[in-house]
Amino acid sequence: MKEKKQGITVKKEQDFAEWYSQVCLKSELADYGAVKGTMIIRPRGFAIWKAIQNYFDKNIVEKTNTKNAYFPLFVPEQFFKKEAGHAQGFSPEVAWLDKSLTQGEHIAIRPTSETIVYDSYSKWIRSHRDLPFKINQWCNVVRWETQATKLFIRSREFLWQEGHCVYETKEQCKKDTINYIKLYEKLCRELLAIPVLIGEKTEKEKFAGAEKTYTIEAFMPDGKALQCGTTHELGQGFAKAFNISFLDKNEKQQTPWQNSWGLSTRLIGAVIMLHSDDKGLILPPKVAENKIVIVPIGEDKKVMKKAEEIKKSLLSLNPILDNRKEYSPGWKFNEWELKGIPIRIEIGPRDLEKKQAIIVRRDNNEKKPIKLTSLKKTINTELKKMQEELFEKAKKQLEKNIIKANNFKELVKGIKEKKIIQSNFCGYANCEDEIKEKTKGATTRCILFGSKAKKKKCINCKKDAKYSVYFSKSY
Amino acid sequence: MKEKKQGITVKKEQDFAEWYSQVCLKSELADYGAVKGTMIIRPRGFAIWKAIQNYFDKNIVEKTNTKNAYFPLFVPEQFFKKEAGHAQGFSPEVAWLDKSLTQGEHIAIRPTSETIVYDSYSKWIRSHRDLPFKINQWCNVVRWETQATKLFIRSREFLWQEGHCVYETKEQCKKDTINYIKLYEKLCRELLAIPVLIGEKTEKEKFAGAEKTYTIEAFMPDGKALQCGTTHELGQGFAKAFNISFLDKNEKQQTPWQNSWGLSTRLIGAVIMLHSDDKGLILPPKVAENKIVIVPIGEDKKVMKKAEEIKKSLLSLNPILDNRKEYSPGWKFNEWELKGIPIRIEIGPRDLEKKQAIIVRRDNNEKKPIKLTSLKKTINTELKKMQEELFEKAKKQLEKNIIKANNFKELVKGIKEKKIIQSNFCGYANCEDEIKEKTKGATTRCILFGSKAKKKKCINCKKDAKYSVYFSKSY
Repeated sequence: MKEKKQGITVKKEQDFAEWYSQVCLKSELADYGAVKGTMIIRPRGFAIWKAIQNYFDKNIVEKTNTKNAYFPLFVPEQFFKKEAGHAQGFSPEVAWLDKSLTQGEHIAIRPTSETIVYDSYSKWIRSHRDLPFKINQWCNVVRWETQATKLFIRSREFLWQEGHCVYETKEQCKKDTINYIKLYEKLCRELLAIPVLIGEKTEKEKFAGAEKTYTIEAFMPDGKALQCGTTHELGQGFAKAFNISFLDKNEKQQTPWQNSWGLSTRLIGAVIMLHSDDKGLILPPKVAENKIVIVPIGEDKKVMKKAEEIKKSLLSLNPILDNRKEYSPGWKFNEWELKGIPIRIEIGPRDLEKKQAIIVRRDNNEKKPIKLTSLKKTINTELKKMQEELFEKAKKQLEKNIIKANNFKELVKGIKEKKIIQSNFCGYANCEDEIKEKTKGATTRCILFGSKAKKKKCINCKKDAKYSVYFSKSY
Repeated sequence: MKEKKQGITVKKEQDFAEWYSQVCLKSELADYGAVKGTMIIRPRGFAIWKAIQNYFDKNIVEKTNTKNAYFPLFVPEQFFKKEAGHAQGFSPEVAWLDKSLTQGEHIAIRPTSETIVYDSYSKWIRSHRDLPFKINQWCNVVRWETQATKLFIRSREFLWQEGHCVYETKEQCKKDTINYIKLYEKLCRELLAIPVLIGEKTEKEKFAGAEKTYTIEAFMPDGKALQCGTTHELGQGFAKAFNISFLDKNEKQQTPWQNSWGLSTRLIGAVIMLHSDDKGLILPPKVAENKIVIVPIGEDKKVMKKAEEIKKSLLSLNPILDNRKEYSPGWKFNEWELKGIPIRIEIGPRDLEKKQAIIVRRDNNEKKPIKLTSLKKTINTELKKMQEELFEKAKKQLEKNIIKANNFKELVKGIKEKKIIQSNFCGYANCEDEIKEKTKGATTRCILFGSKAKKKKCINCKKDAKYSVYFSKSY
């Protein structure tokens, strides 16, 4: 019997960064690439991305009449220069091609595709009949980060979707931009069991080139927020820069309104960080590729046969039957707990006698004997419950960590204690800079939707507050 | 009523290249990107790719126990140098990053991913229990072509899938490599209605770094072959270069055998070229996003209502209901013929009286009245027939164009007449070069599977022939 070393060697509470890295690597979700800053998404990790893509295409792309397409990886330098704010925001992280290849032309690898997409839109959009015009693409983007690589969370290349829509009116555009962020929130909740804060970004934190940015922010166990998706009201800036116009119903030339919206493989990082534990990965059942693993106990032929039968009866759950002889049941339990299989079924000779199997839930270790006749039904119920309970647990955790601060001292204290602080804020970028410095890293995560702060003062500068925001440290 | 200019302005027979470009652009399948050599896959084109991906994941990835994953875009230069033949084959077309970004390190954008994938395999594969190890990825690759861009067929960036497998024995590897090319053939036949020649590449034409390359070759109406997919037996060259090894059942270190296999968005080009006509796009129903279009004739409210009802009853075919008032029925017919909707349903007041609709097939213009009660059934039958007949028609065309040449004069004549020439061949690269020169461009497409040419002589050099091959011009 071969028992190689396995499992996570540090505790989530003690060394969160090392714990996270070990979960990603040892659950075989990802690995580091050969070029500094790059990552490999291994099959177990890619299956989570595929589940996100499938949900997204069905519930967001199709339901909003958006169409998938593909735009080029390469962006000419002059495109960046057309929208000044956008260019400035991205220029430090843009990767360029070797000029010897391009006869001296400066060609970028897309960090995002607004410019390359809108150049095409200026050719394709002619009439109000073409609007709204809604395209999404799934692709890789490159941002030449200098900060340390963190699997799924920060890498020089990552996968994402980016939507780009064009509307006749500002109102339609605004409404849809908010709708997309709400659909992102729903995806996090329904599929990934991630509760998020939803709101608007401040001036300082909004997207380069946007009038408004909406965001969903998840809160990680190490006390940092993780931006999980953003949607941007782009106004008419890009349309003017790229000459996008349309003939309205009265045959008059008009400038349209635009938005863009994206979420990335970073979401996989959020799922791992949020739900997993010291034994390894915990996945919401909906994104687990294999929802169950069957481990026969002993080598009794009848048990083996029954295990095969159970597997066949649960094919829709993509079961793993681990009948390897070279490993002990205990070793197998550890392996599949590490890899985050939501439910384990154990069956041994005594279970067989009793016409039962033991099921063990990965998230709460609950172990119970189930009659074989009701196995399928019970497992489906437990998977559903696990999905819901993971969300409820994370939601309680999130709510517990939100604290209202009435003065600056409370803000500093809360940040030190790794909380999310809700407080009144003036909205000025320089005040936000000051708060970041004084708190050693806290920034605004978002302005609460619909928040008003009439007659209130900013928690830092004491000027009139504009709204109520969340402050925290972040990834 | 607004009647803008539409339709293809040249004949397929008269100016194939211009005709093809107009079909791609005017059917809104693709467009040229801003950076020379790049292309945009528009929603109508991307839907074809998505249909290919769905078929592929279900019938090839899943059925062969392969797993999808994602490897980085960037490849360090030293990886290319590890396998000499591979490096030499790709070096002229590799795009490099600007060195100022990488502290002088030479980093390539993947033209294919053997090296970056096998670097990881050397870390992941340990034991015979890990084999066969099979991963596929869907991604973009970059080859800095200097030849003119041709939408879907030749561009500096394109999308593809690449599979990379590792096996214990040469026999397993060979068997699977041939199995994958057969699955490619099946995909072309079943999904895209493209008949292909299947066989092995000659020494001269095989993949850089491969021991053997298998290929499927489609034959285009302009008399050129189009390579539609290849699978490669890589032998042990990459495994040795990248230190991939495994412990066999006797605990001995062994070097495994590898293959790789890929097909690309080029397939979309093949579909368009092969089936379409002077009116525009013709798509096999299985890859058409919208399988029917409903055009009400006149503005009778009852007709409109019935058209809506028909749409609802055929939702699974993703119908378009074209009830725009600003265009005439004739204009609409042209538009949807241009865009390749497989079946058109026309319904006017007189049809309504007779409780019928007119259906028109895009491929053969067959027009017939169908009772509304049997509309759904008939349309499903016609779609199936259309799919089959497109294949049969293309297959007859292919067979008609294959000619056996017994001497060099016949070979030259056949190539001039844009045929595929089957003849005996010695297999030497220099002889193939000579033939290419003498015929102004013909190369071997493939060696027929199982072909033997005992006691026969090479059609050019008169040395002993090794096998029977197909010669033709190609893309």
